[in-house]
Amino acid sequence: MRPEESQVKLAQIFRFHKRETAPARESVRAVSALMTACHNLLSERGEVSGMRLAGEILASYQTLDKTGRDLFFNRLVKEFSPDPEEVGSAGDAYRKDPSPENLVRLQRAVEPPRQELFRRLNVAPGGTRGLVQMRGHLLASRSDSAQAPIAADLGHLLASWFNRGFLVLQKIDWHTSATVLEKLIQYEAVHQIHGWRDLRRRLEADRRCYAFFHPALPEEPIIFVEAALTQGMSDKVQLLLDPDSPVAPAESADCALFYSITNCQEGLNGIPMGSFLIKQVAEDLGKEFPRIRRFATLSPIPGLRAWLQSNVEPELLAKLEVPGWLDDSKLREELEERMVPLCAYYLLRAKRGKEPLDPVARFHLRNGARLERINWLGDTSSAGLKRSAGLTVNYLYRLSDLERNHELYTRDYAVAASREIEALVKRAGSLAEPMIH
Amino acid sequence: MRPEESQVKLAQIFRFHKRETAPARESVRAVSALMTACHNLLSERGEVSGMRLAGEILASYQTLDKTGRDLFFNRLVKEFSPDPEEVGSAGDAYRKDPSPENLVRLQRAVEPPRQELFRRLNVAPGGTRGLVQMRGHLLASRSDSAQAPIAADLGHLLASWFNRGFLVLQKIDWHTSATVLEKLIQYEAVHQIHGWRDLRRRLEADRRCYAFFHPALPEEPIIFVEAALTQGMSDKVQLLLDPDSPVAPAESADCALFYSITNCQEGLNGIPMGSFLIKQVAEDLGKEFPRIRRFATLSPIPGLRAWLQSNVEPELLAKLEVPGWLDDSKLREELEERMVPLCAYYLLRAKRGKEPLDPVARFHLRNGARLERINWLGDTSSAGLKRSAGLTVNYLYRLSDLERNHELYTRDYAVAASREIEALVKRAGSLAEPMIH
Amino acid sequence: MRPEESQVKLAQIFRFHKRETAPARESVRAVSALMTACHNLLSERGEVSGMRLAGEILASYQTLDKTGRDLFFNRLVKEFSPDPEEVGSAGDAYRKDPSPENLVRLQRAVEPPRQELFRRLNVAPGGTRGLVQMRGHLLASRSDSAQAPIAADLGHLLASWFNRGFLVLQKIDWHTSATVLEKLIQYEAVHQIHGWRDLRRRLEADRRCYAFFHPALPEEPIIFVEAALTQGMSDKVQLLLDPDSPVAPAESADCALFYSITNCQEGLNGIPMGSFLIKQVAEDLGKEFPRIRRFATLSPIPGLRAWLQSNVEPELLAKLEVPGWLDDSKLREELEERMVPLCAYYLLRAKRGKEPLDPVARFHLRNGARLERINWLGDTSSAGLKRSAGLTVNYLYRLSDLERNHELYTRDYAVAASREIEALVKRAGSLAEPMIH
Amino acid sequence: MRPEESQVKLAQIFRFHKRETAPARESVRAVSALMTACHNLLSERGEVSGMRLAGEILASYQTLDKTGRDLFFNRLVKEFSPDPEEVGSAGDAYRKDPSPENLVRLQRAVEPPRQELFRRLNVAPGGTRGLVQMRGHLLASRSDSAQAPIAADLGHLLASWFNRGFLVLQKIDWHTSATVLEKLIQYEAVHQIHGWRDLRRRLEADRRCYAFFHPALPEEPIIFVEAALTQGMSDKVQLLLDPDSPVAPAESADCALFYSITNCQEGLNGIPMGSFLIKQVAEDLGKEFPRIRRFATLSPIPGLRAWLQSNVEPELLAKLEVPGWLDDSKLREELEERMVPLCAYYLLRAKRGKEPLDPVARFHLRNGARLERINWLGDTSSAGLKRSAGLTVNYLYRLSDLERNHELYTRDYAVAASREIEALVKRAGSLAEPMIH
Repeated sequence: MRPEESQVKLAQIFRFHKRETAPARESVRAVSALMTACHNLLSERGEVSGMRLAGEILASYQTLDKTGRDLFFNRLVKEFSPDPEEVGSAGDAYRKDPSPENLVRLQRAVEPPRQELFRRLNVAPGGTRGLVQMRGHLLASRSDSAQAPIAADLGHLLASWFNRGFLVLQKIDWHTSATVLEKLIQYEAVHQIHGWRDLRRRLEADRRCYAFFHPALPEEPIIFVEAALTQGMSDKVQLLLDPDSPVAPAESADCALFYSITNCQEGLNGIPMGSFLIKQVAEDLGKEFPRIRRFATLSPIPGLRAWLQSNVEPELLAKLEVPGWLDDSKLREELEERMVPLCAYYLLRAKRGKEPLDPVARFHLRNGARLERINWLGDTSSAGLKRSAGLTVNYLYRLSDLERNHELYTRDYAVAASREIEALVKRAGSLAEPMIH
Repeated sequence: MRPEESQVKLAQIFRFHKRETAPARESVRAVSALMTACHNLLSERGEVSGMRLAGEILASYQTLDKTGRDLFFNRLVKEFSPDPEEVGSAGDAYRKDPSPENLVRLQRAVEPPRQELFRRLNVAPGGTRGLVQMRGHLLASRSDSAQAPIAADLGHLLASWFNRGFLVLQKIDWHTSATVLEKLIQYEAVHQIHGWRDLRRRLEADRRCYAFFHPALPEEPIIFVEAALTQGMSDKVQLLLDPDSPVAPAESADCALFYSITNCQEGLNGIPMGSFLIKQVAEDLGKEFPRIRRFATLSPIPGLRAWLQSNVEPELLAKLEVPGWLDDSKLREELEERMVPLCAYYLLRAKRGKEPLDPVARFHLRNGARLERINWLGDTSSAGLKRSAGLTVNYLYRLSDLERNHELYTRDYAVAASREIEALVKRAGSLAEPMIH
Repeated sequence: MRPEESQVKLAQIFRFHKRETAPARESVRAVSALMTACHNLLSERGEVSGMRLAGEILASYQTLDKTGRDLFFNRLVKEFSPDPEEVGSAGDAYRKDPSPENLVRLQRAVEPPRQELFRRLNVAPGGTRGLVQMRGHLLASRSDSAQAPIAADLGHLLASWFNRGFLVLQKIDWHTSATVLEKLIQYEAVHQIHGWRDLRRRLEADRRCYAFFHPALPEEPIIFVEAALTQGMSDKVQLLLDPDSPVAPAESADCALFYSITNCQEGLNGIPMGSFLIKQVAEDLGKEFPRIRRFATLSPIPGLRAWLQSNVEPELLAKLEVPGWLDDSKLREELEERMVPLCAYYLLRAKRGKEPLDPVARFHLRNGARLERINWLGDTSSAGLKRSAGLTVNYLYRLSDLERNHELYTRDYAVAASREIEALVKRAGSLAEPMIH
Repeated sequence: MRPEESQVKLAQIFRFHKRETAPARESVRAVSALMTACHNLLSERGEVSGMRLAGEILASYQTLDKTGRDLFFNRLVKEFSPDPEEVGSAGDAYRKDPSPENLVRLQRAVEPPRQELFRRLNVAPGGTRGLVQMRGHLLASRSDSAQAPIAADLGHLLASWFNRGFLVLQKIDWHTSATVLEKLIQYEAVHQIHGWRDLRRRLEADRRCYAFFHPALPEEPIIFVEAALTQGMSDKVQLLLDPDSPVAPAESADCALFYSITNCQEGLNGIPMGSFLIKQVAEDLGKEFPRIRRFATLSPIPGLRAWLQSNVEPELLAKLEVPGWLDDSKLREELEERMVPLCAYYLLRAKRGKEPLDPVARFHLRNGARLERINWLGDTSSAGLKRSAGLTVNYLYRLSDLERNHELYTRDYAVAASREIEALVKRAGSLAEPMIH
């Protein structure tokens, strides 16, 4: 089949494929055409017509449904994996003589051909975006462990391409394009943005929003952080989020409070960027506002409620379900007395391996931040009650301590915490025997 | 030693190192400090202080002279190479059970740790530029084959980062910044640019210049091509280059003639970009000027003179040295009669392996272009006489034929040439017996 | 009083003034300080400290309420008007000897000093915006005819500054900043934009929005027009405005329909820009979409309902108030039969002086457009029913006829109309005797 | 004649006109066509076809030579001046009743119709540039005083359009486009720029260049100033201008020295911008480099040599002509002793009316600067010797004193000078009797 023919066919197949809801048979045909195109792209011919061919492959991939994608990924595993024979004999050669030449031969042998396939797909306009999306699909359907190697290959490639050195920090405000702003509304994962009015309040003079962008993905935020410039370290997130709150002059702030950080691209999960973002923004804000002395977060404790469920007496949690308890000051105080120490205990003692069980704690502690304060009723939204039993926590980013804290954490899993929190844990411990199962 | 101390020390050492002409002993000390910093960057600590540390390492690298760099590269080979033990046992495990997990283990084992080192160096501001420069140094000192693996590693990384999908095409004209324009003057490798007046003529309305840029290297052209918009396919490069030639209206052109293409970054040698550039520019010009029907080059034949030296009778070449031969019409005709067929013969028959001996021919033929015409006295500059015996050649880029030509070339090494040139080769052949040694 | 003192005082006064609701006495004091500052700005001293002083004056002006502004404007009239003495004697001198020198003297004499005052105010950052706003205030309080000369002076200046040559056309779409987009929502005067979702639909692929901007007013639209790219010339505006309507491919359109044009700055009323905007956009769209053959408006007839009120029998209009008449096909047809000819009659025969009574008709006819078609139930929104009795009209912009139509209109007040509409007018005329009072 | 015809004719005439060297008769025909077009532009027709018509008029104007332009200007005076009759009777009406309405009538009567003509010409693309050029032509041919009113009208308009509020300050450095940089080379009027290398040195880290631009004249500097960041207040301009001088770190500078300020557009002569430029740049540099404590100029004394010529004994000046006197230390000292006091005397005592005779002194003193220091052999270039007898002077811009100095200057023509210079004047005075004629 000559190239022109194959292309016409490809187009016909996909058009057909698109119109009808894809029955298995159609998927098979579509994926077959797609695989042929992939093989062509990797061949000599691909060198000249690469850009066009890559564009067609990515466009065709878009038309696939879940079934089609699974078929496609499985064939990628089968047809674009390293050749075990060659790997074996290259390994032998290296073992006999560990020369640079033999190492290079072995490296070539173990690199799956799909790595090069992905690199060539990237030359299409919008190619990078397509590959990020592809990895997003792979990570979403975790069930199929046979596809894990492809996700890993793509992850390897994307980690290299989304290296901090290629990311561009941009301030986001009301002068930013609606295209970008709309995506913030859509992506925000910690405290949902309720429409444009809510968004606007988050971009006023006493708020800041920064995002990393990648030059190959214009107008597509990769990760963004929202901060409030405040007097004192806030404890209640509802006050920060209130779209009707008055705007304070930024110059009078002495604290920058990060209250939300969101990874926007599922396909880039696991590629570390949040730590770079927070530190960069803290540095930049420190220069812009020399009066700011404290950088801290106001964070959820997403694993707390689940942990409580299996570790404390049900009677306690039942109280959190009593209608109107938030308005019952006695009940509130009673709960505060118990919940705050429990939260401290959870954050410092509950572990997954040697690290804290709480994912947000793991992130900030690994960055070198310090567990500073636990805030009772810091987030009374239904989401906040559900995940964190209404509590929030401040992690303190003292720039001069980050490196030491990080080192102690990564070496010994030592958690930096304020005395106040240490004391709470002891209290929780003394109360704990009968309480913590 | 605490990090702050180490840093102060590092700075002292390098300052010292910089001031004095580096004696071997100083180089050793400087490189030792540098290697410690590299190990730190790869350690846990590097995660938090990476940007600063990477910046320091690259700055320190800048202070090294050739001796220092060789020391550094040799230690990189020694200390950041794969562990043969681990490679061996991972190879065994894979051989026993070629599972995805074992493949991933083997892949990790064979990837030299310096790959990750380079990735972390890239996070520094200007990091990419530093790594490109480093590879430039490595390629320049080819003598030392022990350093080849590092060059290869960097090459692998840079090829991935300078993927076509990340390159940005920009038109360069008199509105471009002086920073960029100055670099064109400095980099131009085919037909030297003699100052700003010469450059200005090359950017007038009937000329075009385009370059690829990379977002991480602002104002730094990666590769650029110069074109003339002409009526008919020019044969004489001096006419095109004359800074006093009148500017023609671009709209009346029927031909776009690429007369120069230059790779600007030694450190990116071997990473294919020229083919993408020419094709993209041809497409863009075709859209802007629908009257343009022909895209061709006016190219040097850089290997011709050397090949003639060892393949034809010295008496012939001696005539090229006769003072004033260019003004002697009889001598000129006599030479033309012999040189043109010889040039055709050289381009079509002289081989390196299965490919043409001439590097420019290899480049354009592999791109799918066709050898179209040989021009006697197409370049009478001293450089042109020295490298190409005064000849030039037009390669024709017929967009509709590129793919087929490329395929025939890469499969069978078949060279696409005009009938005229085929005929010349035959003539050269019949004359050749006594002449070509 | 030394300048520094005066300034401190100024600040104190205004601060005071701001806090309390301004009693008449406070206003007097505030305006006195303001006038002193204005005199200073016009004096020699103003030359050096002009930028600062102008900024302070404009900031102080912002703090004035209606009472304060009236005081201020009245004093501007009194203290910054031409000197009748000097005007008189310069007039005499010119009459005696109409030399260039005497003309220049007379010109200087008749130019009110406030012109120069306004020019000097303009040097403040944001100065132009402040002056536009000031004229806005003046036009809004039309009652006070004593202030008319200031409005005229400002109008003269702004007409010169907002000359077409200084206006920049910009396409507005979803990539535009939220700051600008928000202003469209706020300013739109013809068909209200109901929030961001509605706006977004108006910026999709089959819609276009363009605005004039002025370099001194960044992110501030001066006038904007909205167009729909359609197949055929639409008659019903609700279809165009429906935020849920499917997006059509722009390439298939054969008509560009201007359905809204809005002046954003009250302070620039009377300065002609709409005509330039429509023609420029029509030209640009014509180049981008060669398939578009017709440029037309879908316009309201804002004066129709009021005219009907005083010119036709009340029984007819009463039917427009019958609940549910829009769903009563018989009633609808009955009304159509009467209303469409009446509308044609109104547009062609109802006059203000020699021009049509309808302001929208005046605008488009003066531009050289042609009255093309009257659409029954073209706008069934409550606003559409209230102002235009549910009718819309298409004005056709045939670029080749604009100049001739415009000339006939401005010379003879001849209205270009389609035969269809001419016929309708005749029918209205024959029906008219008993009907039109 | 229908508009299309007239246009064709216009084009023919101008083409003809262009080709041949314009004989008087051709000029007359060309200008007649041009005047017809001008009348059309001012008529009703001009409203619709304004942009096109204005473009044609400006293009035609470009083809005129000096003879043609004089014809054109004379007819502008004749045909587009105010009507004396109407001026007279409007004057009478105003005298009888000085109402706002009568004032407006009089204002309209005295405004020459060419003002509106110029405003309409401005709507053409490049219109502003064309009008600036036209005024440049008018100012250049000063001989013809009959044209003065047009120059004045254009001046009035351009002063309003080039109001400080519309000028944009831009830093110019090596990242600026070659188009702009080339114009600096071309325009620089104080210390000629000798090619790109010289220019580059003036844009290095220890130099600064700023220009005002106008949005309607892209890439066209209006006025620019060059500054050196130095330690101490330099006295010798040759050291600053040396293209081979080492680049100093800008951070260590404690003085910003303005050594050149150039008006680029002859057509904008007399419109004050230099004062704004210097003050703005001083403010901006003060913010960027808080260590800079002094802002001063290093200025020529352009009128000095001529004044000396007619005020001191010829024997003294003759010494400045002695070959090699600059290398004769005795002669140098002897001259210094005489010339420096004479220069002080010239700057403080030589007057034109009540102001200093020296134009550069007038400019800086009026700005509020202080005469600070006279530098012997501050400019030993041939231009420097010729205009300033080798001397330079520093004017000090102490921001806190500018306003007071300016006020004293404009009120009493009091010149602010350092004690040192006051002393020199006295010395010059005591020596003066026999010396100053």
